[in-house]
Amino acid sequence: MSTLWESRYSLRARESKSSAIRELLKLSERPGLISFAGGLPAAEVFPVQRFQEACQKVLATNAGPALQYGATEGYEPLREMIARHMARYAILATVENVLVTSGSQQALDLIGKLLINSGDRVLVEAPTYLGALQAFNGYGAQYLSVPIDDDGLRTELLEASLRLGPKFMYILPNFQNPAGVTLSQERRHQLIGLADKYGIPIVEDDPYGQLRYEGEHLAPLVVLDRENLRRDNGFSIGNVIYLSTFSKTLAPGLRLGWIVAPPKIISKLVQLKQAADLHTSTFAQYVAFEVARGGFLDQHVKLIRGVYRERRDVMLQALKEFFPPEVTWTRPQGGLFLWVTLPEGMDSQSLFQSALAENVAFVPGDSFYAGNGPESCRHLRLNFSYPNPEQIREGIRRLAVAVKRQLSTSPCEVAC
Amino acid sequence: MSTLWESRYSLRARESKSSAIRELLKLSERPGLISFAGGLPAAEVFPVQRFQEACQKVLATNAGPALQYGATEGYEPLREMIARHMARYAILATVENVLVTSGSQQALDLIGKLLINSGDRVLVEAPTYLGALQAFNGYGAQYLSVPIDDDGLRTELLEASLRLGPKFMYILPNFQNPAGVTLSQERRHQLIGLADKYGIPIVEDDPYGQLRYEGEHLAPLVVLDRENLRRDNGFSIGNVIYLSTFSKTLAPGLRLGWIVAPPKIISKLVQLKQAADLHTSTFAQYVAFEVARGGFLDQHVKLIRGVYRERRDVMLQALKEFFPPEVTWTRPQGGLFLWVTLPEGMDSQSLFQSALAENVAFVPGDSFYAGNGPESCRHLRLNFSYPNPEQIREGIRRLAVAVKRQLSTSPCEVAC
Repeated sequence: MSTLWESRYSLRARESKSSAIRELLKLSERPGLISFAGGLPAAEVFPVQRFQEACQKVLATNAGPALQYGATEGYEPLREMIARHMARYAILATVENVLVTSGSQQALDLIGKLLINSGDRVLVEAPTYLGALQAFNGYGAQYLSVPIDDDGLRTELLEASLRLGPKFMYILPNFQNPAGVTLSQERRHQLIGLADKYGIPIVEDDPYGQLRYEGEHLAPLVVLDRENLRRDNGFSIGNVIYLSTFSKTLAPGLRLGWIVAPPKIISKLVQLKQAADLHTSTFAQYVAFEVARGGFLDQHVKLIRGVYRERRDVMLQALKEFFPPEVTWTRPQGGLFLWVTLPEGMDSQSLFQSALAENVAFVPGDSFYAGNGPESCRHLRLNFSYPNPEQIREGIRRLAVAVKRQLSTSPCEVAC
Repeated sequence: MSTLWESRYSLRARESKSSAIRELLKLSERPGLISFAGGLPAAEVFPVQRFQEACQKVLATNAGPALQYGATEGYEPLREMIARHMARYAILATVENVLVTSGSQQALDLIGKLLINSGDRVLVEAPTYLGALQAFNGYGAQYLSVPIDDDGLRTELLEASLRLGPKFMYILPNFQNPAGVTLSQERRHQLIGLADKYGIPIVEDDPYGQLRYEGEHLAPLVVLDRENLRRDNGFSIGNVIYLSTFSKTLAPGLRLGWIVAPPKIISKLVQLKQAADLHTSTFAQYVAFEVARGGFLDQHVKLIRGVYRERRDVMLQALKEFFPPEVTWTRPQGGLFLWVTLPEGMDSQSLFQSALAENVAFVPGDSFYAGNGPESCRHLRLNFSYPNPEQIREGIRRLAVAVKRQLSTSPCEVAC
């Protein structure tokens, strides 16, 4: 049964955590199971009628270009809209600073392709977004992991790793995936100062920044960096590449993300994107533009915030009510996730099996670490955007049953 | 003005032929210019009303899943439809053999990522598809180029290159981009025999196979390979990976292509695709499925064939009428392109400048060669799908003026 492909060549893709998670997510599709495992938006908040109107308008007035090949950089009116949208968050970008990508995942892949040579080190938070590790792994990245706490990356521990010369830092400052924590104002300034001191650029990944449910918006790293450089020339210089997406505010099925970067970086990324997929779906871009325009995006984000804030609150309340005191969790001010820490000696892989028996699922936290320390086994990522409030309450009740059963038995025997 | 990105790191993307072509295509957008440069379908053949109905239906009945994250493999009903569609061309695939990609370009990129380690050799036709060179260049490919003639790849020259151990062969058997030629039946058998003898797998790229305007359909390499293996177990073995796309039959703006391969290869490619863009736009996949279903795709392809056949005939007639006898060209039986050969001493880059002065554009042929021999300078790629018949006739007349002017002056001074 072997083929030339297999017998002659060691196929490069490795069996990895990603496969484990894929299998896990398949498991979690079984009927009756309540899943906190995915990172999906609630389908109830998709603006379906607005999509219907947008499709009709695009196809009635602009069908030719919307169905044709397009520019690798993206549909120009959409790029302009993104630049204007960024300005609302104090990110002063022009159309030349914006590249539309096939979701934020492609942005991570293109950045990996541009910057990482095999063996290069990338500084990441511990834990960090699994999809970034997958993208960077493909280019042979090694990692320097710096822990986080409730105020995000522990910048006081950063210098030892920066001295080892990472190629760049990959940072999720807002409502981090998986932990839900936010980098404090003070640490943002420290991070930018250290990046400058050691000459290490930053990739700032901000898919959830707009989904803040309480507290004040904090300045993005890309804005602080520009202030630090004290050069008021828009975006022609700058050492932070900023990423965001429409996946959490309009619909992930569009696969539309974007990169904001200096034009010289954009132009390199455009060349790589051309080789990767020529350009992102023009039809999806035209439709997204029609959906988002005229202030709709901001108005719709307000609606989403209300829905997700309620779900977060229901989850926090249920955790408080059902979980034993030995277990702790983060209190995210926005985003889609919170992060549970189990007491020492318990591990999340064993708990996962018990949880499945109770018909509830989550992602064990070890998937989100570049390395495998004992610390990585004690966490679970819980998503609160996809299940509805009733499911959240019932799911946390079930999970608490599994947690209590695990607590009452012997410490884990599974090495993770 | 230098940034950390530039000063610390040599950004990996190289200035390349792709940039030259991008600049060239920008030039060719000027008003009044007739362009044979692009590879675009005619917007007139986009089935706009069918798209309108499909969007309405998808959003009325399936909005949740169509706008949500989806499986990396692709939307299952679309994969099933592709498998059935392939069977019409004698390619016996099941859903497990099909991966939906973000256009054929992504298929090339994923294949490069899976198979090419820096310095590996890839056997390509000379000339070959520029986008494949771009994708493979990103992984450090070196090339073994084997010339083509009117019957496609010159298989009698193949063995010398196969002895050098290329990682795989990249072949466009039907109406090749850029030359428009088709690999003959006899050579297909020779190619499969040699692939087997030397143990070198084949990537068969077939974006235009359905767009045949005359003559008999020839069996794809993937079919001959299976017959050669004399094993009737569907697609569980096989040494040809087959690629195709909806870009030329429905609309390129969807960015929907596919790979047909043994399940073990598909599973490796799925892992790489997950890291590259998670999955292709679910919305585009649902819409394409609704557009194509119920026999519409085959019916629509017939319409496209009629339109493009006429345009090809108009171009062939105009070439015969206006061009001097020193110039020759291919006579494609399908696809979007034909390939012009200039007499020795003339070069296509100089002609391009003269052509622009006459308000007509094409792609100089040297972009389609992995290497830069003197042979590569004497060709032009002409597209006949995008301009209408009047534009084609007038454009060829203008191009003939430029050709005759070049012929009457001294031989080219530009090294290419």
